[in-house]
Amino acid sequence: MKNEQIVLVKRPEGMPGDDIFRFEDIDINTPGDNELLIESVYISVDPYMRGRMNDTKSYAKPFDIDEPLNGHVLGRVVESNAEAFKENDVVTGHLSWKKFNTVSADSVSKVASTEVPLHLYLSTLGMTGHTAYGGLLNIGKPQAGETVVVSAASGAVGSVVGQIAKIKGAKVVGIAGGREKVTYLTEELSFDAGVDYKADDFKEQFAAAVPDGVDVYFENVGGTVSDEVFKHLNRFARIPVCGAISSYNSKEDNGPRVQQQLIKSQALMQGFLVAQFEDEAEEASKQLAQWVQEGKIKSEVSIAEGFDKIPEAFRNLFTGGNFGKQIVKVSDSLD
Amino acid sequence: MKNEQIVLVKRPEGMPGDDIFRFEDIDINTPGDNELLIESVYISVDPYMRGRMNDTKSYAKPFDIDEPLNGHVLGRVVESNAEAFKENDVVTGHLSWKKFNTVSADSVSKVASTEVPLHLYLSTLGMTGHTAYGGLLNIGKPQAGETVVVSAASGAVGSVVGQIAKIKGAKVVGIAGGREKVTYLTEELSFDAGVDYKADDFKEQFAAAVPDGVDVYFENVGGTVSDEVFKHLNRFARIPVCGAISSYNSKEDNGPRVQQQLIKSQALMQGFLVAQFEDEAEEASKQLAQWVQEGKIKSEVSIAEGFDKIPEAFRNLFTGGNFGKQIVKVSDSLD
Repeated sequence: MKNEQIVLVKRPEGMPGDDIFRFEDIDINTPGDNELLIESVYISVDPYMRGRMNDTKSYAKPFDIDEPLNGHVLGRVVESNAEAFKENDVVTGHLSWKKFNTVSADSVSKVASTEVPLHLYLSTLGMTGHTAYGGLLNIGKPQAGETVVVSAASGAVGSVVGQIAKIKGAKVVGIAGGREKVTYLTEELSFDAGVDYKADDFKEQFAAAVPDGVDVYFENVGGTVSDEVFKHLNRFARIPVCGAISSYNSKEDNGPRVQQQLIKSQALMQGFLVAQFEDEAEEASKQLAQWVQEGKIKSEVSIAEGFDKIPEAFRNLFTGGNFGKQIVKVSDSLD
Repeated sequence: MKNEQIVLVKRPEGMPGDDIFRFEDIDINTPGDNELLIESVYISVDPYMRGRMNDTKSYAKPFDIDEPLNGHVLGRVVESNAEAFKENDVVTGHLSWKKFNTVSADSVSKVASTEVPLHLYLSTLGMTGHTAYGGLLNIGKPQAGETVVVSAASGAVGSVVGQIAKIKGAKVVGIAGGREKVTYLTEELSFDAGVDYKADDFKEQFAAAVPDGVDVYFENVGGTVSDEVFKHLNRFARIPVCGAISSYNSKEDNGPRVQQQLIKSQALMQGFLVAQFEDEAEEASKQLAQWVQEGKIKSEVSIAEGFDKIPEAFRNLFTGGNFGKQIVKVSDSLD
């Protein structure tokens, strides 16, 4: 067995090129007391990581230069020195981008069931599902009959947001890039409408899709797409602000200021992080698992294969190259 | 007695010039059943009226062309055909910009006391006081020890916001234009700091005034001043959005988008109108009157004299030419 890691060489400007990542051969550390040796099987790449590549004060500590990047990983226990774990247990946790991590047993959790596709623990049943659930229900508070708009709607968070809004009886309009994704929203996920932001007549298409205005806008993208959505806000509209992926690689992010629109519509806009809903995480997990089991929440996953594909898979998040949750499979050992 | 009114000639572009107002001599209508003839004594000019001059869908119906403008007025009953009112009663209500209005008795209310300066019923004890109270306490929710920033801080709403925040034990930083206003904030209103947005080193001054960041930002002005405040938001900051006066006369209102900042600080931004706090209006009235009586809320008023001064007084709101609440006195009959 051979270990490998990916470290951050320097802070990117704009889109992170291959030059900011370095692959390094490293040793496998033998686990000590209460430690586990874990083989990475699925590695999650997520938009918020772009923020951590910058050296700015934010909610998450910046990645350190010359240190391995890290994020959510699903892995297999190779060797356990902790009572609660045994070989071949399937675990998730926040781990380094290494083929093998040696960590304290307290830093990972066993998955609830191995009967579902395991990558779901990095998506619908993991951080992205919890993000959708927490932001939509605590801030968006969709009511039956209301119009809920979600951007990046075929993405890992957006697709779950739209499906939960449907379960709550709302009319759901998804915004995504390209015919294929838009068709997926209405045909596979039963959204009421899908609008292609890449279409020349996006503004007209969007206006036609929200004849009764927008009551909830789940914000994933920012930029000019959102500028357009803001024009259609209803009175007392709620806007959970989850992401602004169109802006993460830009130096300048200027557009119409929102103050006047917020006053006109007496609207609420709230930035959030999944961690703030920690108190209800257990309830969310149960509910999401039930909806998945009942077929009420479907999910799409883009799985890149190979540890060396991580940088490219990460960039896909910003180019729209992925479909649904982007994951990298780095080992066949749980197949 | 001679009646006169001011009508809207056309919709302004940018700052409303004299050409959009027309003064007209009109008749005094004799009050019918349950009607009152009211002489206007104080007329309130307020920033939100600029929005009503546009022909755009908003919370308040646009003013009609060739019809009199209207707003909050304090007046004296000249003739009453309603049981609940008698001559010389002092009333407030939403009335036309006329020297004499003949209206249903249901459309006005008697003031609670004539022992206080009457113009307070158009400011601290009226709409602007209720705006400050409702927005700050329901959305801003200042806690003792937190830093509350308010823009247009010497204005009718801002000065009350800052003083309520002080009562609640917060550290209060006011932003205003010019040394005189800034000095007023700290010397007369006991704000902890005042920052002059017209100063060359505004950014540095502001940063120095909020060493612990900003927990509540009561937004009155929008534009570049607010762009700067947003950079200092603390985690879980709250931003009641009351106005964006710097933008009301602009065609373009572009600046940094707020999404990324809201996520970073998990902050909440909410547009509001005083009407949404109607349920607590009685409680607010009592509390504000008590604070005024106790000397805990002081207020400054700029009183222009003469019905013909209304357009100029209105423009003062946008040029910073006024100090505190801007009112026009149009009759001496209550002196």
